[in-house]
Amino acid sequence: MGSCLSETELISRFFDFQIPGHWSTQGIGDDCAIVEVGQTRLAITTDTVASGTHFLPDADPFTVGKKSLAVNLSDLAAAGAVPRCFFLSLSLPQTDLKWLEAFSRGLRETAEEFSCPLIGGDTTKTAKIEDKQAPFSITITAIGEVQKGLTRQGAQIGDDIWVSGRVGDAYLALMLRTGQWKGLCTQDVAHAMDCPTPRIALGQFLAHYATACADISDGFLKDLGNILTRSSVGARVNIDDLAVSEALRARSRDERRQAQLAGGDDYELVWTASPQARAAMREFEKTARMQGEPLVLSRVGTIIPDGLILVDNSGCEVMNTFKGFDHFANENV
Amino acid sequence: MGSCLSETELISRFFDFQIPGHWSTQGIGDDCAIVEVGQTRLAITTDTVASGTHFLPDADPFTVGKKSLAVNLSDLAAAGAVPRCFFLSLSLPQTDLKWLEAFSRGLRETAEEFSCPLIGGDTTKTAKIEDKQAPFSITITAIGEVQKGLTRQGAQIGDDIWVSGRVGDAYLALMLRTGQWKGLCTQDVAHAMDCPTPRIALGQFLAHYATACADISDGFLKDLGNILTRSSVGARVNIDDLAVSEALRARSRDERRQAQLAGGDDYELVWTASPQARAAMREFEKTARMQGEPLVLSRVGTIIPDGLILVDNSGCEVMNTFKGFDHFANENV
Repeated sequence: MGSCLSETELISRFFDFQIPGHWSTQGIGDDCAIVEVGQTRLAITTDTVASGTHFLPDADPFTVGKKSLAVNLSDLAAAGAVPRCFFLSLSLPQTDLKWLEAFSRGLRETAEEFSCPLIGGDTTKTAKIEDKQAPFSITITAIGEVQKGLTRQGAQIGDDIWVSGRVGDAYLALMLRTGQWKGLCTQDVAHAMDCPTPRIALGQFLAHYATACADISDGFLKDLGNILTRSSVGARVNIDDLAVSEALRARSRDERRQAQLAGGDDYELVWTASPQARAAMREFEKTARMQGEPLVLSRVGTIIPDGLILVDNSGCEVMNTFKGFDHFANENV
Repeated sequence: MGSCLSETELISRFFDFQIPGHWSTQGIGDDCAIVEVGQTRLAITTDTVASGTHFLPDADPFTVGKKSLAVNLSDLAAAGAVPRCFFLSLSLPQTDLKWLEAFSRGLRETAEEFSCPLIGGDTTKTAKIEDKQAPFSITITAIGEVQKGLTRQGAQIGDDIWVSGRVGDAYLALMLRTGQWKGLCTQDVAHAMDCPTPRIALGQFLAHYATACADISDGFLKDLGNILTRSSVGARVNIDDLAVSEALRARSRDERRQAQLAGGDDYELVWTASPQARAAMREFEKTARMQGEPLVLSRVGTIIPDGLILVDNSGCEVMNTFKGFDHFANENV
């Protein structure tokens, strides 16, 4: 009974109930739902991460704790939100005190860094398959506050396309660790995969300038693609304008492009903004660097009426053969 | 590395971070967190249900959809909240269109019944164990609005203890279906396990009268016990005052008591209220019945300074050998 629905198709086919609500909301399909509660506007997101799907089976529990909250805060960042609180639903195979201690230490570190208290949750045992318990699974719901709130909708023809950070290293780490690519996984590269930094300050800044925004969780082209679909526009992108780490620059061109365009798990932001906002972007970048954060913002393309055109520095068009991450799309059961 | 921490101990040991937040909240440990957002007070709850833990492996997906939302709305009911919206995080072994169609139909039916729109979520693949995907797991976060909000804290010495409905049938259904007790699982009994009704209207009524409230998910004594602990009081309960279904009355005394006192999965409410509220309770019960709902409210005991005394109709004290459900307490790994 398997099928090839993408996550987006699955949601629109089965879960777009259109039940009228008391609160005004901006439906399903963005990084966050934006909900108007009295005079306050909330951004709310929920994400599940599981061992074997989002984490390697032997992942350090401290890292698991940090990253599970970070990926949810990244969704809040994409909405331009100030994090306010979160809820944790933890499914564990057993009460492993050492694992729990390290996990909670990691979770707490990220929660403290972003002043985001844990205010509720649930713990259960994971399901059994035959005699074995399934490994851990963690669902976090994070709530933030926005002024207006950024979504994937709103990109205008003529807008610049921007990306934060050097995307691709998280994917490089995964390939090296699983032995699919040859080479040593350096500490910096491992860090990109294990300890992504949610771009909370950048997101709040972008709330004043961006016309649309998403976080890069499933791969740059896929997450940009979500903006294009939701905004009913196209894009022309110079893929050589994406900032690249030294580690990734040392790989072959094909590996580099695969990692940067389709890799995912970066938790950087991709957004669109009027060309008039360029000076403000550079100013934000400069201020961050003066404060010791080596932030890089890359202007990588332009919004066009439709289609997706990829070019490189030589001006040649590049075939888009890169597929971002989709949990269900490549299944063939 | 296994251990015998209860869920409550696990939370207080590892997840009581005490990080100061921007919003005023009533910490971890209740059915819902109560959060003040501007002029609005929210009740927020999150619960994970999984195949093999909360559902029998062959559970009807329509029922799974209905019940997964119902158990979260039951937490909102215990807080006296009006449901406003919910978020769904769905982990599936594969895209089974037939399963998804029935699941979404069940989910939608409960969502429509309580005017609670689905406004966001996440779908992922379940983790693998060796070659097999783990079965489904569903996390729902539900958000409601309260005036003041009911919690487990606030029971006063001299208060009555009340219970809604006829508890025990969900446990009876589980025992019959798994063959642990002999007999046929009738449709009524199966319905108690498959389609619990969240007591939303009752909860909103109780918000004006109850001093503390909880829903009965882990067993009457365990959920009452949470009220006693959080309120620093004790209770004297006549266990024969719990309303009992005909199906359960036909079982042995030991089975009946086990199901009623420790069974869980009932999603009825247990609450405390001043004796002055008795007339209001009876009035609510009468109105519900006039509207065609055969609601029964049972006054089963009294709040005392400390301890938990169980008696039966003969006035004899009954030993409390009944244990409610705890995911981790009985583990011995």
